[in-house]
Amino acid sequence: MNNIQQLTVNAIRALSSEGIDKANSGHPGLPLGCATIGYTLYSEILKHNPKHPDFFNRDRFVLSAGHGSMLLYTLLHVFGYDVSMDDLKSFRQAGSKTPGHPEYGVTPGVEVSTGPLGQGIANAVGLAVAESVMAAKYNKEGYNVVDHYTYALCGDGCMQEGIEYEAASIAGTWKLGKLIVIYDKNNITIEGSTDIAFTEDVGARHEAQGWQVLKVADGEDVDALINAVNEAKAEKDKPSLIIVRTQIGKGSKKEGSADCHGSPLGSALTEEMKKDMGYNYPPFTVPEEVKAHVASLQSKYDAYYEDWRALMKEYSKNFPEDAIQLNKDVANDYSNIDIFDGLWENAPKAEATRNSSGAVLNKVAKIVTNLIGGAADLAPSTKTYMKDLGDYFAGSRTGRNMHFGIREHAMSAICNGIQLHGGLNAFCSTFFVFSDYMKNAMRMSAIMSLPVTYVLTHDSIGVGEDGPTHEPVEQLAGLRAMPNLNVFRPADRRETVAAYVTAITSGKPTCIVCSRQDLVQLDKSGKEALKGGYVVYGEGTPDIILIGAGSEVGLCMESAKVLESEGVKVRVVSMPCIEVFEKQSEEYKNSVLPKSVTRRVAVEAGVTMPWYKFVGLDGKVIGLDSFGESGKPEVLMQKFGFTVDNVVKAAKEIL
Amino acid sequence: MNNIQQLTVNAIRALSSEGIDKANSGHPGLPLGCATIGYTLYSEILKHNPKHPDFFNRDRFVLSAGHGSMLLYTLLHVFGYDVSMDDLKSFRQAGSKTPGHPEYGVTPGVEVSTGPLGQGIANAVGLAVAESVMAAKYNKEGYNVVDHYTYALCGDGCMQEGIEYEAASIAGTWKLGKLIVIYDKNNITIEGSTDIAFTEDVGARHEAQGWQVLKVADGEDVDALINAVNEAKAEKDKPSLIIVRTQIGKGSKKEGSADCHGSPLGSALTEEMKKDMGYNYPPFTVPEEVKAHVASLQSKYDAYYEDWRALMKEYSKNFPEDAIQLNKDVANDYSNIDIFDGLWENAPKAEATRNSSGAVLNKVAKIVTNLIGGAADLAPSTKTYMKDLGDYFAGSRTGRNMHFGIREHAMSAICNGIQLHGGLNAFCSTFFVFSDYMKNAMRMSAIMSLPVTYVLTHDSIGVGEDGPTHEPVEQLAGLRAMPNLNVFRPADRRETVAAYVTAITSGKPTCIVCSRQDLVQLDKSGKEALKGGYVVYGEGTPDIILIGAGSEVGLCMESAKVLESEGVKVRVVSMPCIEVFEKQSEEYKNSVLPKSVTRRVAVEAGVTMPWYKFVGLDGKVIGLDSFGESGKPEVLMQKFGFTVDNVVKAAKEIL
Repeated sequence: MNNIQQLTVNAIRALSSEGIDKANSGHPGLPLGCATIGYTLYSEILKHNPKHPDFFNRDRFVLSAGHGSMLLYTLLHVFGYDVSMDDLKSFRQAGSKTPGHPEYGVTPGVEVSTGPLGQGIANAVGLAVAESVMAAKYNKEGYNVVDHYTYALCGDGCMQEGIEYEAASIAGTWKLGKLIVIYDKNNITIEGSTDIAFTEDVGARHEAQGWQVLKVADGEDVDALINAVNEAKAEKDKPSLIIVRTQIGKGSKKEGSADCHGSPLGSALTEEMKKDMGYNYPPFTVPEEVKAHVASLQSKYDAYYEDWRALMKEYSKNFPEDAIQLNKDVANDYSNIDIFDGLWENAPKAEATRNSSGAVLNKVAKIVTNLIGGAADLAPSTKTYMKDLGDYFAGSRTGRNMHFGIREHAMSAICNGIQLHGGLNAFCSTFFVFSDYMKNAMRMSAIMSLPVTYVLTHDSIGVGEDGPTHEPVEQLAGLRAMPNLNVFRPADRRETVAAYVTAITSGKPTCIVCSRQDLVQLDKSGKEALKGGYVVYGEGTPDIILIGAGSEVGLCMESAKVLESEGVKVRVVSMPCIEVFEKQSEEYKNSVLPKSVTRRVAVEAGVTMPWYKFVGLDGKVIGLDSFGESGKPEVLMQKFGFTVDNVVKAAKEIL
Repeated sequence: MNNIQQLTVNAIRALSSEGIDKANSGHPGLPLGCATIGYTLYSEILKHNPKHPDFFNRDRFVLSAGHGSMLLYTLLHVFGYDVSMDDLKSFRQAGSKTPGHPEYGVTPGVEVSTGPLGQGIANAVGLAVAESVMAAKYNKEGYNVVDHYTYALCGDGCMQEGIEYEAASIAGTWKLGKLIVIYDKNNITIEGSTDIAFTEDVGARHEAQGWQVLKVADGEDVDALINAVNEAKAEKDKPSLIIVRTQIGKGSKKEGSADCHGSPLGSALTEEMKKDMGYNYPPFTVPEEVKAHVASLQSKYDAYYEDWRALMKEYSKNFPEDAIQLNKDVANDYSNIDIFDGLWENAPKAEATRNSSGAVLNKVAKIVTNLIGGAADLAPSTKTYMKDLGDYFAGSRTGRNMHFGIREHAMSAICNGIQLHGGLNAFCSTFFVFSDYMKNAMRMSAIMSLPVTYVLTHDSIGVGEDGPTHEPVEQLAGLRAMPNLNVFRPADRRETVAAYVTAITSGKPTCIVCSRQDLVQLDKSGKEALKGGYVVYGEGTPDIILIGAGSEVGLCMESAKVLESEGVKVRVVSMPCIEVFEKQSEEYKNSVLPKSVTRRVAVEAGVTMPWYKFVGLDGKVIGLDSFGESGKPEVLMQKFGFTVDNVVKAAKEIL
């Protein structure tokens, strides 16, 4: 490391610690330990441009160890991104551009929201997949318009999480040669030395998973880091893991101790550290020499950007249709829902909504040509295979059906990465009950507002014989409780169309929750379902409203007819998506559920919790607040009270 | 394999397929592929006794690939467990002893409910941990009263799930030499060949994780299987993985095809298979020779049991106090809550409930001497270290503090295994938001009614600076929606005592959800909190009821005082555990929340969904239906409306 490099690294260390001290909150261990890695990445490795942080062919960098956010903010500031010194001083304050963990959309240069450990690696796999797809789709000889690397930086925490193993395994199978993960190996976690809980040979494990593994003995060795990255790039058929031996809290008096993982050093120790490294600048200073050094690099960054722009210009001339389509994919604008007009047809007879979903998905895939995805080894059951659209694998990056393997958590986080890359839309699928396995990655879709489509089938005790471990009960409530996520539980094929249209156009993640068993097709279903809840039966002001979702709408319809035969005026409301319904005008909501009609029964084969909001203290909810059972679906529905008799009885009790 | 062995294996294959055909539902692929492995386990390997399926020192067997349940039921029947031929004929029918996936407590000889892939391996790790703890605690020289192996059988599905990697990694670190996992490697999953999604070298990966890896080239080779198990036993310091090459659907026309994974062969193909293997018996028959063969083994099984009984008798004579304590641990009866009487004290001043929890846990650990557990590398933050009680590791199996590493999902499933073993109680801990990572294992605690204690701290936007990825919002609703799980969110230290007492005595899993920030101590808290909800403020019939939980009870108290100063009669209800409150008598519930008082405001820093049940269409819920933000906790609480002003305003609006 030469003098100016060392000075820059010192400045990064000082600024990081100063920012954390000022916030009196944060994690100095990683920023100090990885300052040199960070410097090397931003100065020598990444093809990026601070003035154009979003240019499409940039290298992507994911700080998987998101608690090290202050390092990232410091790097962005020092290298000239739109992150000011005041922003660094506002670290972790409400409304700032420098929140506690990196947040996508909040800070220029932050590619992914990270913090929940392990997920960043899976996001990086998704970014690398997207690059490989877009490259295969659009590059022409001499015109590598999509051609970049994906880097991630992670620590021991990420390496212990199951999702990292899952992501590493599929990355190896997919031979993602342009994925380079740097492992900040400091052998310290919060409870102390990794000896107490993590003795595995992480390198050998990754080799077993099909990775190239490289080692850098000293995290302060800039040249060794650059050489390792070059070796990583030379291996085209394997993702690379670069294991870098570092010291947590490097340079400070707490170097090597778990104490500095998540607690500020405090200004006394920070000043001592600065003194020890011979760095004599006031707090929140970037030395002029460092500024000049970084400025000297800008021409390189400009060249990355300008060269690509020039290439794109030539490409547009020589391959105009491809260029238009590429721009269209990147713009990803499907807001005109008229393009889905041909889809609004019901099935000719009763149909499981998983089959409806399969039919609709196959049509949607023809319209949304940048949609890719697949299942966690359940496509034949979840009906998510897109016919004639090929399979994505190492030898065929343009195939649109992905085989994620039995790795739900990584699948979801990989889809987040694909979506983050730009140019593609992603869907994934498993049994609804196993949404549990990927819940936090789904939460990250919601936090980042990524329109990933989750096709979740086998939605209730209607699963039947597989029994309680496979029968969702509380998952509907749990996912409906998640902010910024649509949970669509369609009652028939047209409602399934509404679910897909919402998924593609709403700009946030959508779950499409489907039945295993056949459902009747509703006469009145259709585009109204895009409002989340609507009247499917009954005229005028009713005596009572039955509210149902999914497979229970049919039950409400049957029950309504029985009640009407006894002189009761009934309205049936289908509520496929509570979240979307809640967003409608008060007027519309009141037209569907008039305040004056307080006699209401909600029916759903899941826990009752979501429905009290709609039925109040005087209404009833027919639901299932216990686990299911193994048995024939129709036997279970009977046993757990999802019968016309039971609905009619409940209605009469409150009439 | 000799003739009688082959005949028995054939019978197992036939019965398995016949049972699945009769149910017209189920998974024949594994039972056919692993019939010989199953036979070898039950005849030659397991130290078990069909007449005493629960004797304490038996070897434990976990069918991690739970979809292969019919193999297990067939083995249990053939080897003389209390599973009849009629039970086999009732496979997958409602109320039967032979449900779709193995269910703990339903079928004698089923050790664990399995089905969600990967978890069985983690359960087996927990069983092996428990064995090691109990052995270290109670064995004396010449008296190995606890001395058994734990076996698991898993397939490619289990091997791809992140939880298996997590469990394997910590099992290697813990040097669980008596854990033996058999990997049914048939290279087929539902979407086809494992080549498409799973090319990692599973053996090398386990070696990197500190396992001994053994291979059996042919799953039909009984002697090779026995030899491999003997080699596994000879390695005392490493868990062993035995990779057995098998053929899915072995013996049938669908052998080697994904088609037979989850669909019945049908009686025509089953009969053809029987013919092909020269097995000429009617459906649902156990040949007399097979019965005689199994009967000849019973004396061995009797010896296992009788020898252990004799050993225990001697042990009781020579080590009477240990014997009493061992029996007490196994009985695990803490139903007399008077033993916790010394705990019901509040903190002298405001205290974060995570600190309350730390204080209470340390006292509880002195009373509940068979309680072990720890955190997913967060003990210093979640305050779950038990002072002076040592650490559990390979060299010290009696230490009671466990270091699970950053592996939430495995942690929870390992605790399920510990609890299933008998003799111990388990707790585990992480940040509340990361309960997402272990949700399905928590669900398995609930399905099996295992009283695992989950200490989940940092419970709301009160987390502050770490931001939305670390701030739980929807987790309270999501876990409250789960059947058979207590979610306790205490408001002060005495309510934290109530949470622990409930956790230890309720016979099901309990979440103790704690604040990061200090909370005021309530005057009226105490044993009433064991009822889940109770009045903490106000006399007589109120004009309005404020309902709060956890950190928001204090806010309700302050708001009540303001309202009272304006002449409004207010009652404050603290509702630390909705599930427990719901179980109280109607009379009690009505005394807390009188039907006549319909003006109600619920306040909680989480999504509003759980509270509509208590406030109805006319009440209000002050909650948070969006994600949080990074910032100082007090700033966020203000920003998101958790203020006295806002509560008072809401109250006035409905008055």
